[in-house]
Amino acid sequence: MPACRVTITSVKTAAVGSGRRDRAGRAYRYEETARFITDLVDNGTLIPGARVPSLREITRQRRVSLSTALQAYRALEDRGVLQARPQSGFYVAKRAPILLEAPAISKPPARPTTVAVSGVVPKFLEYAGDPNLLPLGCAIPDAELLAAGRLDRFLARAARAKGVDYNKYTAPKGDPRLRREIARRALRWGQVLSPEDIVITCGCTEALVLALKVVSRPGDTIAIESPTYFGFLQVLEALDLRALELPTDAKSGVDLAALARALEATPVKACLFASSFNNPLGCTMSDERKRAVLELLAEHRVPLIEDDIYGDIYFGDDRPRPFMAMDPPGTIYCSSFSKTIAPGYRVGWIVPGRYMARVLDHKFALTMCGPALPQAALADFLSSGGYDSHLRRVRRTFRENIDRMMRTIDRTFPRGTRVSRPDGGFVLWLELPKPLASRELFEAALKKGICFVPGDVFSTSGRYANCLRVSCGSIWHPRIERGLETLGALAGTLLARRPRGASRR
Amino acid sequence: MPACRVTITSVKTAAVGSGRRDRAGRAYRYEETARFITDLVDNGTLIPGARVPSLREITRQRRVSLSTALQAYRALEDRGVLQARPQSGFYVAKRAPILLEAPAISKPPARPTTVAVSGVVPKFLEYAGDPNLLPLGCAIPDAELLAAGRLDRFLARAARAKGVDYNKYTAPKGDPRLRREIARRALRWGQVLSPEDIVITCGCTEALVLALKVVSRPGDTIAIESPTYFGFLQVLEALDLRALELPTDAKSGVDLAALARALEATPVKACLFASSFNNPLGCTMSDERKRAVLELLAEHRVPLIEDDIYGDIYFGDDRPRPFMAMDPPGTIYCSSFSKTIAPGYRVGWIVPGRYMARVLDHKFALTMCGPALPQAALADFLSSGGYDSHLRRVRRTFRENIDRMMRTIDRTFPRGTRVSRPDGGFVLWLELPKPLASRELFEAALKKGICFVPGDVFSTSGRYANCLRVSCGSIWHPRIERGLETLGALAGTLLARRPRGASRR
Repeated sequence: MPACRVTITSVKTAAVGSGRRDRAGRAYRYEETARFITDLVDNGTLIPGARVPSLREITRQRRVSLSTALQAYRALEDRGVLQARPQSGFYVAKRAPILLEAPAISKPPARPTTVAVSGVVPKFLEYAGDPNLLPLGCAIPDAELLAAGRLDRFLARAARAKGVDYNKYTAPKGDPRLRREIARRALRWGQVLSPEDIVITCGCTEALVLALKVVSRPGDTIAIESPTYFGFLQVLEALDLRALELPTDAKSGVDLAALARALEATPVKACLFASSFNNPLGCTMSDERKRAVLELLAEHRVPLIEDDIYGDIYFGDDRPRPFMAMDPPGTIYCSSFSKTIAPGYRVGWIVPGRYMARVLDHKFALTMCGPALPQAALADFLSSGGYDSHLRRVRRTFRENIDRMMRTIDRTFPRGTRVSRPDGGFVLWLELPKPLASRELFEAALKKGICFVPGDVFSTSGRYANCLRVSCGSIWHPRIERGLETLGALAGTLLARRPRGASRR
Repeated sequence: MPACRVTITSVKTAAVGSGRRDRAGRAYRYEETARFITDLVDNGTLIPGARVPSLREITRQRRVSLSTALQAYRALEDRGVLQARPQSGFYVAKRAPILLEAPAISKPPARPTTVAVSGVVPKFLEYAGDPNLLPLGCAIPDAELLAAGRLDRFLARAARAKGVDYNKYTAPKGDPRLRREIARRALRWGQVLSPEDIVITCGCTEALVLALKVVSRPGDTIAIESPTYFGFLQVLEALDLRALELPTDAKSGVDLAALARALEATPVKACLFASSFNNPLGCTMSDERKRAVLELLAEHRVPLIEDDIYGDIYFGDDRPRPFMAMDPPGTIYCSSFSKTIAPGYRVGWIVPGRYMARVLDHKFALTMCGPALPQAALADFLSSGGYDSHLRRVRRTFRENIDRMMRTIDRTFPRGTRVSRPDGGFVLWLELPKPLASRELFEAALKKGICFVPGDVFSTSGRYANCLRVSCGSIWHPRIERGLETLGALAGTLLARRPRGASRR
C-alpha cells in the first residue's frame, strides 16, 4: 500500500466519539468546541499544518474552561484532526489525501432492457426502516437533523388553527401558498416561475410517474443514467417502460457521445436524468454539458424529465442550475422536500411545462390530490424564512459526514475499493474489488446489524454486483464509524476467501 | 299535477332557517328543541298526524323556557314539519309522500368503450372547491360536520409529540397502528382481518389504481356500473383501460342477467363495483345479489374490485356487508376515510388479498408511501373511540339532508323529474324530463352561484345528458333550500323553452 495512506492502526478509534451528548440530548461543551475547530478545518479556514488557537486563546474565545478546551483538543487528536507538537501546541493534522479512486465510467449494454426489479425494493425499504440496523441503507436525513427545522410545530399550529378549513380536497394543483413559496425559490437560480406552473405531488415519486405517463406509452424506452436510483427502475417497471442505461461518469455524468449514439440507434421516448448529485453516483453535469444534452434532445425531439431532489444539498458556493433553468422546451422538472426537511410529509412537485393539462388529468386519476395540512404547514414554514438556515445546517452536516465516511472507508476497506466523490447529496457509491459480491457482504453485514443497499439494485441489466451505496444522512456518531470499520473488515475477509481474492491491506 | 303533491306556495320558506347559530357558533336553544322534535319525526317515533308533546311538556322535558319552546314549534311549523291545530296543540304534519319516481334502470351499450373524460374532471373539482358556489357539486362532507370529530386536535398533538419520530418514510404497508384499527373495524361485519392484510393508500383513488394495475394491462376491459363515479372513468383512462358499462338499477344495483351476458360476450378483465351506496345512483346490492355476482365472477375467473367508501354511511339498522366479507377469492377491497371524517387527510386503504406482493411493488413505484403524521393522528383518533359516535352524527345528518332535499326537489323541479332514493351515502341522482340537458342547466345555475355535477360526466358512452348529481353533504341551511328551489325553477324555465318541453308544474 502507498505509504501516505492512513492505516487502521495509525488513527486511534475515537474513544470519545464526536457527537457525544448528555442525557438531555445537549452536546457536551467540549464537543461544541471540537465541532467549532472541525468546521474551521472542513471549510478550509484552517489548512493542514496550520497552528490552531492555543488552549488559552480558545478558552477565552469560546468561554470554556481550560479542561474543556483540553478535552476537545485531545478528542480531535484522537480523531486525527489535530496533531500535538510537544512544546509548540496543536496543529491541523496533515491528513493523508484520500487516495481512493473514483469509480470508472459505467458500461451498460447499448440496448433497452425490460425492467424487472419487483419485490426487491419493498424488502430494502423494510431493512432501511429498521431502527435496530445501522442506518447506512435508506437515503433520508437523520430525524434529529430535520427536527432542528421545527417543521412539526408549524404542522401542529396549522392543524389547530386551520384544521377545519383544510379538511377538504385541495385545489387540483395543490395549496396555492405552497406553490408560491416554491416558485419564489426558483429565483435562486434566476428563473421566473409562477405558482400556476407548479403541481404539488405525493413526493418526487409521483412527480416522476406523472412525467413519464404524459410523455410515454407502455412498451416505450426511457434513457436513464447508469447506475440509477432503484426507485426509477421500479417506476419504469410499473409503467411497463423499458430502460436504456447510459454510460455515466461518477463526476461528469452521462457520456454525451453515448447519448448521441443511443438517440440515433434507439427510439428513445424520453430521458430521465438527475439535475444534480445523481443517486447513487453523485455526479453532476456542468452547465455546458447540460446545454449539450438539451441540444441533442431538441434535435431528436426527445423530452427530458429531470429529478432535482438533491439540488439544494450542494457543497460548493453555488446551487447547481437544473436543466429547466436553461429554458428548454419539453423539459419536465420534478423535486420534493424529502431530502432536506420532510421525508415524512410526502410533498413533492412537478413543473410540467407544456404537459400541464395532461399532468393534471393524471394527477386526479392517480391520487386526486395530496393531504392539505402538511402542504399548509410547509407553506408556513417556507414563508417564515427558516428554510435557508436549515438548509445551510443540512449541507454542512452532509459535507462533513461524507468527508468522515470517505476517510473511514479509505482506511478500512480492501485495497482496490473505489468510491465516488460527490459535491452534494448524501450518498456514497463504492466499487469493491472484484470478485467481491456486495450481496454476500450485505448478508454478512445484516448479521452484524448493518444495512446498506447492494449495487445490483441500481441496474436492470445485472450490473454493479460488486458495488454498494451507503447513506451519509445520519448525524455522525462513533456507532457509524465502527459500523463502517466492521463493513470494511467484512469486505476484506470475504475477499480473502475468494479464489482470486485481492490482497488485504 | 297530483293534488297530494306539495307545491311551492304551500310551504313557506323558513324565515328562521334550521341550523341558526349565534356568533359563537352554538345552535340557538330553540334550534336544539326543533332538532329534537325533527329527529323524532325523521326516525319514525312521531308519525304523521301524531300529537307532539305540548309546550308545557317540552318545556319541562328539555328544560327550556316557554318562549323558546314556542319559537321552536313555530319554526317547525314554518318548515312544514308540524301543524298547529287551534285549541288542540301541535301535530306532525301529514306530509305528502314523495311521489318522485326512481330513475329507470340504465341501458348502456353492451360493448366496451374507450374512456375519454380528460380535462373534464379537474374543471369540476375547481367549481366544487369554490367557496362562492352553493356546495351541491363536490361529494365531501361539510367541514363543520367533520370538525365535530376533532381529528385535527389529534393531528396537532401527534405533530407536537411524535413529529420527530414520524418525519420519515412509513413502513411499506403504512402505519401499523392505523392498520390495526382498520382491521378491528372489519369485525363489524364479522370479518377477521389482520393489519398485515392492509396497505394504506393516498385516498381510495390510489387504492383503485393499485387494484386495477395488478389485475389488468393497458387495453383490457373493466366492467363498471352505469352511471358510475367519474373518478373511476378518469382512472380507467389514465391506465389505458376500456370500460364496459353495465345496466344498473337505482335500487338493486347491477343487472345480473346483463352481467352474465357481458361475461360471456366480452373478455372482461375485472369488475369495479361499489360495495354499497354507489356514487351517483345510491344503489346497494342485497347479500343474495352480491353472492350471485361473486359466483358469476368465480365461474369466469374474473376478479372483483370493490369500492366501499360510502359503506359506513348507512341509514338502516345494519352496515351493508362488503363483497369481501363473503370471503371470495380474488376480490380486492378499497376504501378511505374521505367521506366520513378526513377528506383533507387523503388516507385510504386496500385489502389486496392474493395480490399483496404486486400491490406493494406498485405502491412503492407510484407514491412510495403516504405522509406519516396524518396516519398516526387517524390511528390515535380511532383508538380513542370517538369515531363511532362521529359516524352516528354523520349518518343522521346525511339521512335528514337527503330527506329534506328530496322534499325540496319534489316541490320545485319540473314534473317528470325522477330521483334516486339511496339508503346511505349523501348524493342524489336526478333524471330530468327530456329533452332537458343538464349541461344547459349547469351553465344557467353557475350564473346563480349554484354548482352540481352534470350527468354526462358519469358515463363514457355519452349517456345521462338529462341527469345530474347533487351532493347532500352540507349541513342543512336555508341557503341550500333556496338554491335547490332556484335550480328547480331554472329547470322548469329551460324545459318550457324547449320545443317538446313538458308542461311546467
